[in-house]
Amino acid sequence: MLLLRRVCFLLPSPSPRAPLAKPLPLLLRPPRTLPSAARALASMAAPAAPAGGTAAMSRDAFRAAVTNTLERRLFFVPSFKIYGGVAGLYDYGPPGCAVKANVLAFWRQHFVLEEGMLEVDCPCVTPEVVLKASGHVDKFTDLMVKDEKTGNCYRADHLLKDFCKDKLEKDQTLSPEQAEEYNKILAILDDLSAEQLGAKIKEYGIVAPDTKNPLSDPYPFNLMFQTSIGPSGLSPGYMRPETAQGIFVNFKDLYYYNGNKLPFAAAQIGQAFRNEISPRQGLLRVREFTLAEIEHFVDPEDKSHPKFGDVSDLEFLMFPREDQMAGRSATRLKLGNAVSEGTVNNETLGYFIGRVYLFLTQLGIDKDRLRFRQHLPNEMAHYAADCWDAEIECSYGWIECVGIADRSAYDLRAHSDKSGEKLEAHEKFAEPREVEKLVITPSKKELGLAFKGNQRMVLEALEAMGETEALDMKATLESKGEVEFKVCTLGKDVTIKKSMVSINIEKKKEHQRKFTPSVIEPSFGIGRIIYCLFEHCFYQRPGKAEDEQLNVFGFPPLVAPIKCTVFPLVKLEKFEVVAKKISKALTAAGISHIIDMTGNTIGKRYARTDELGVPLAITVDNTTSVTVRDRDSKDQIRVEVDEVASVVKEVMDGQSTWADIMWRYPTHTASAAEDEAEP
Amino acid sequence: MLLLRRVCFLLPSPSPRAPLAKPLPLLLRPPRTLPSAARALASMAAPAAPAGGTAAMSRDAFRAAVTNTLERRLFFVPSFKIYGGVAGLYDYGPPGCAVKANVLAFWRQHFVLEEGMLEVDCPCVTPEVVLKASGHVDKFTDLMVKDEKTGNCYRADHLLKDFCKDKLEKDQTLSPEQAEEYNKILAILDDLSAEQLGAKIKEYGIVAPDTKNPLSDPYPFNLMFQTSIGPSGLSPGYMRPETAQGIFVNFKDLYYYNGNKLPFAAAQIGQAFRNEISPRQGLLRVREFTLAEIEHFVDPEDKSHPKFGDVSDLEFLMFPREDQMAGRSATRLKLGNAVSEGTVNNETLGYFIGRVYLFLTQLGIDKDRLRFRQHLPNEMAHYAADCWDAEIECSYGWIECVGIADRSAYDLRAHSDKSGEKLEAHEKFAEPREVEKLVITPSKKELGLAFKGNQRMVLEALEAMGETEALDMKATLESKGEVEFKVCTLGKDVTIKKSMVSINIEKKKEHQRKFTPSVIEPSFGIGRIIYCLFEHCFYQRPGKAEDEQLNVFGFPPLVAPIKCTVFPLVKLEKFEVVAKKISKALTAAGISHIIDMTGNTIGKRYARTDELGVPLAITVDNTTSVTVRDRDSKDQIRVEVDEVASVVKEVMDGQSTWADIMWRYPTHTASAAEDEAEP
Repeated sequence: MLLLRRVCFLLPSPSPRAPLAKPLPLLLRPPRTLPSAARALASMAAPAAPAGGTAAMSRDAFRAAVTNTLERRLFFVPSFKIYGGVAGLYDYGPPGCAVKANVLAFWRQHFVLEEGMLEVDCPCVTPEVVLKASGHVDKFTDLMVKDEKTGNCYRADHLLKDFCKDKLEKDQTLSPEQAEEYNKILAILDDLSAEQLGAKIKEYGIVAPDTKNPLSDPYPFNLMFQTSIGPSGLSPGYMRPETAQGIFVNFKDLYYYNGNKLPFAAAQIGQAFRNEISPRQGLLRVREFTLAEIEHFVDPEDKSHPKFGDVSDLEFLMFPREDQMAGRSATRLKLGNAVSEGTVNNETLGYFIGRVYLFLTQLGIDKDRLRFRQHLPNEMAHYAADCWDAEIECSYGWIECVGIADRSAYDLRAHSDKSGEKLEAHEKFAEPREVEKLVITPSKKELGLAFKGNQRMVLEALEAMGETEALDMKATLESKGEVEFKVCTLGKDVTIKKSMVSINIEKKKEHQRKFTPSVIEPSFGIGRIIYCLFEHCFYQRPGKAEDEQLNVFGFPPLVAPIKCTVFPLVKLEKFEVVAKKISKALTAAGISHIIDMTGNTIGKRYARTDELGVPLAITVDNTTSVTVRDRDSKDQIRVEVDEVASVVKEVMDGQSTWADIMWRYPTHTASAAEDEAEP
Repeated sequence: MLLLRRVCFLLPSPSPRAPLAKPLPLLLRPPRTLPSAARALASMAAPAAPAGGTAAMSRDAFRAAVTNTLERRLFFVPSFKIYGGVAGLYDYGPPGCAVKANVLAFWRQHFVLEEGMLEVDCPCVTPEVVLKASGHVDKFTDLMVKDEKTGNCYRADHLLKDFCKDKLEKDQTLSPEQAEEYNKILAILDDLSAEQLGAKIKEYGIVAPDTKNPLSDPYPFNLMFQTSIGPSGLSPGYMRPETAQGIFVNFKDLYYYNGNKLPFAAAQIGQAFRNEISPRQGLLRVREFTLAEIEHFVDPEDKSHPKFGDVSDLEFLMFPREDQMAGRSATRLKLGNAVSEGTVNNETLGYFIGRVYLFLTQLGIDKDRLRFRQHLPNEMAHYAADCWDAEIECSYGWIECVGIADRSAYDLRAHSDKSGEKLEAHEKFAEPREVEKLVITPSKKELGLAFKGNQRMVLEALEAMGETEALDMKATLESKGEVEFKVCTLGKDVTIKKSMVSINIEKKKEHQRKFTPSVIEPSFGIGRIIYCLFEHCFYQRPGKAEDEQLNVFGFPPLVAPIKCTVFPLVKLEKFEVVAKKISKALTAAGISHIIDMTGNTIGKRYARTDELGVPLAITVDNTTSVTVRDRDSKDQIRVEVDEVASVVKEVMDGQSTWADIMWRYPTHTASAAEDEAEP
């Protein structure tokens, strides 16, 4: 996929992405899981006054607030921190790991189970030949420059970009001509060759940022982690840069498993690796990440989809290439129209765009900060029929999180050619079909007598004739007995006589058609989706103390790492017994939860669980009934002890909303301690 | 863990494992999911006459039958097959992948959720310093020899083992003395040093098996896949050989996350890598595999477990080291007794042994082919308090699938030392405790005057005195004013005067105790468990044709890759409509299933799904009610169309057994086609 397969990865020249560092005002969003009444209210008021908090802050400040909460509550931490860490490697701590598991479980339900996909699980260690065939060994590179004294490495395009942006932002003496030049370079940066990049770096006198030492010329650095398989040192291997190749090499078996029928989809979730030169952008550009990829194999002559009707009425932000090139913004389009009008190449591609939209929004991605952007012609590989990226807006700008590409037959053909194993499908005809075929049969004997050493070249040229040319020759031979014929490999014309070749149209019966299937590939960068989800779910609301802001992750129940907490109101044996009883019932119902037996005030405990995005809190303040509190509305109801686990399960499984539940149970007045902050 | 951490991996000398190649008769087992009545019957009759099939076959023939079915039905296939494959790398195809997902989901439910563990997710790429601290860089090796002409590599111990076994099995001229020598070598094989192995290889004239060329001396080969992090080539890294280190380096954050309280457990599921010299044993010895590891951190002074009572009544096969050394076999022990009598070192270790037993048997592992074997003294690292392996018997013999080790404080100390970051826990005392502390204060000035150049040695010897010695000195100095004192580093006695040192007992108040926690580590080789599960669930039963054997995977619903199939009895529009309706209801209920619309006979379709281990099949032979058929008993019942999805869900979720369901619905007489085989 484009997002992760560097082979065909060229950023668009007139970048349609929002500039990253420009501090735009970013409103804090209302939580995704408001009860419906509150949701209606919030959407009326939004974006000016989201429920619970009205503060506007810059992108950078917002990102700092999110990241701080994420690291402090162990959603993620830099890996190997006690050894100083390694750039581009992160650990998911307990809540992050639970969010990831929930996202992947939902992915399996939404795609694999719902569509009957064939899931496979292939190794990360991959022998060189596979990645040679896919093009990664030769082309999966970034251009790098080295500090000539220290050997430190930098991405050449990053240095040039930083230089131009710095000039544009800080140099007051810049002439309009200079400004135009720097802007132009930023626009075409990703299309520059190694030589062009090197020339600009020399021209501007760009040096190593850390040492001011001179830099080497740019040269390609392969982004795969290389290793050696087995002890001999003779079998180079790589850590896979994507999971897709594991599916392609298994095409034949999977096609057989599917009863030799098309279309079918295979899917894989797994780790992928990229040895980035200098990782930036936190969780968005890392050296190891989880991909979830689908390869949907389809007859290139029939890309319709039987379930397209299920998604054709969806309307959402789309950004066709014409709009990008005309400088317009993304607009809301109806998916059915986008396909019928040819904006999206075919129904199957359109179906997956719709399914991806549903997947992301059900996870909790804000639909107003999600768009499907079509690749510009210079972004797409020559073989691709059409590509769309699901881009999510976060504090880093619009980030490509899912790539959905119609890659035609490229990948299967590449592996067919390299391995010699035919990766084909066949369509059996209900009735045998009569087809006319041109048959050219040169006479080797006659050609040999006439052309001696040149015989082979003439023979090959005859066999290579197209239909029109061959029929013309046939006619001329029949009328005149001979014909002048240009043999390119000889660089001259030769005379072909009637005895030297017979050309006929023959009728043949065919029982089936053989072809290489096209593949439509939705590819999900799970870590990127999760990071954007963190930003979209995060909001702040005022605490009790002046200027105090309390952090909340408004995760929908589906992705919430912990579904509910159980607090005894005060440290009392009888409350603790009830809390343990409820905990047991929750475990039996498969609801992840925590008991907080600390003596902190309820307000503090609520603030702690809001930061973890726990949707519901059960406060044990009585031995027969308890208080259940909703994270976003802070509404509270009274529920019987024996009933509470099933009520929580009902909301967490999505059978009921909090609003539904509110009607059924008596309201509880919030305790005075509610808004007290964590120290 | 021992299973996978080669640092402390020494196979027991007098191997308690069954020899691998000896063809023992292995009875085909009854399915694991028989209705309870049939189960009782089968257990009375077993092992002589398991339900459904009585054929006995050799281990090798049995393994061939299982493996053939597994590969043919795409449970797994050799990776990169179209390129000739890579030894030790396998793909899970669709049903294998589903089994794996089910095993991991149950692992999360049974361990992480049930025990409130902190799950983390760390990268596979690991910088060298981490694996230097853990000992893997220096000690995670196997001894290798090279073909001196071709460079082909072999494991030295494998060659010697093969040579001895070959002699013992095939050489008719062997004298009793020679036989004894070869047997002795087999027994001590794993304790031999590089030099000893090399000497034996020379003495016996062992050459490269493929070429008969001479071999190099044995030398250690590190089993980690090496790579380089970042572009400079200056940061060596490895693909992690286990997931445990990712938890240890995060100890401080996790302890904080847990409210600075012990005990707590962290868990991780992920890929691990081992660059085996020459992988053998199919799925059991591979170069990349999934581990699920738990690190339970506990106060070394209190290894009791509050939930030990939940498992103490369990009785199963245990194999304490005394029994192994005395040549006895494994015996059924009650876990409570094993802990109280000290056979198992402590309650927490015992608790995990019990939980692992429940996990494996609930998955479908046969409890009669599961034992917990204690490590012999020479298998354990010096720091380990006690280790037990869950070993499962399969056609390769007894295979270690889970290691459960009390590793004391070794790992945290190693990372503390290397990183300089204190990985400690503390226990706050309810009341400050008054402790007496010995304080020895030498006078540098006086010692310098008296001993000049030897001053430092004397000073260090004084400071290193134990309590008794110091108090004796204090008494003598007070009574006599001087004392003779032996300084080992000087090799002589010196005279210490009262002015040279003051020795006092001081009282101090301590508010807390600091210590390095012990870690108890259950570590699961998921691929090995799955392979053993395949063997334990596999059985054959006679088909219709003479001598025909039909393959069945008797998976319990919990692990079955596909829970149910839907077949229209014949190709009729009205049946297909019903089949699709049922399929929709099954999807909504989250039940993985397949529809088989092919025109094959019902018997063929049953045979196909039995091979995939599908527990229930729904045959649509009517538009209002359908036939539901149980895989193992082949019993059939009639259920209403609208009810069938919820009935399937009930059995799959374990709320009801097939036997329960049988009572509630009318029985259906099997069609004549039932036993027809697949062509």
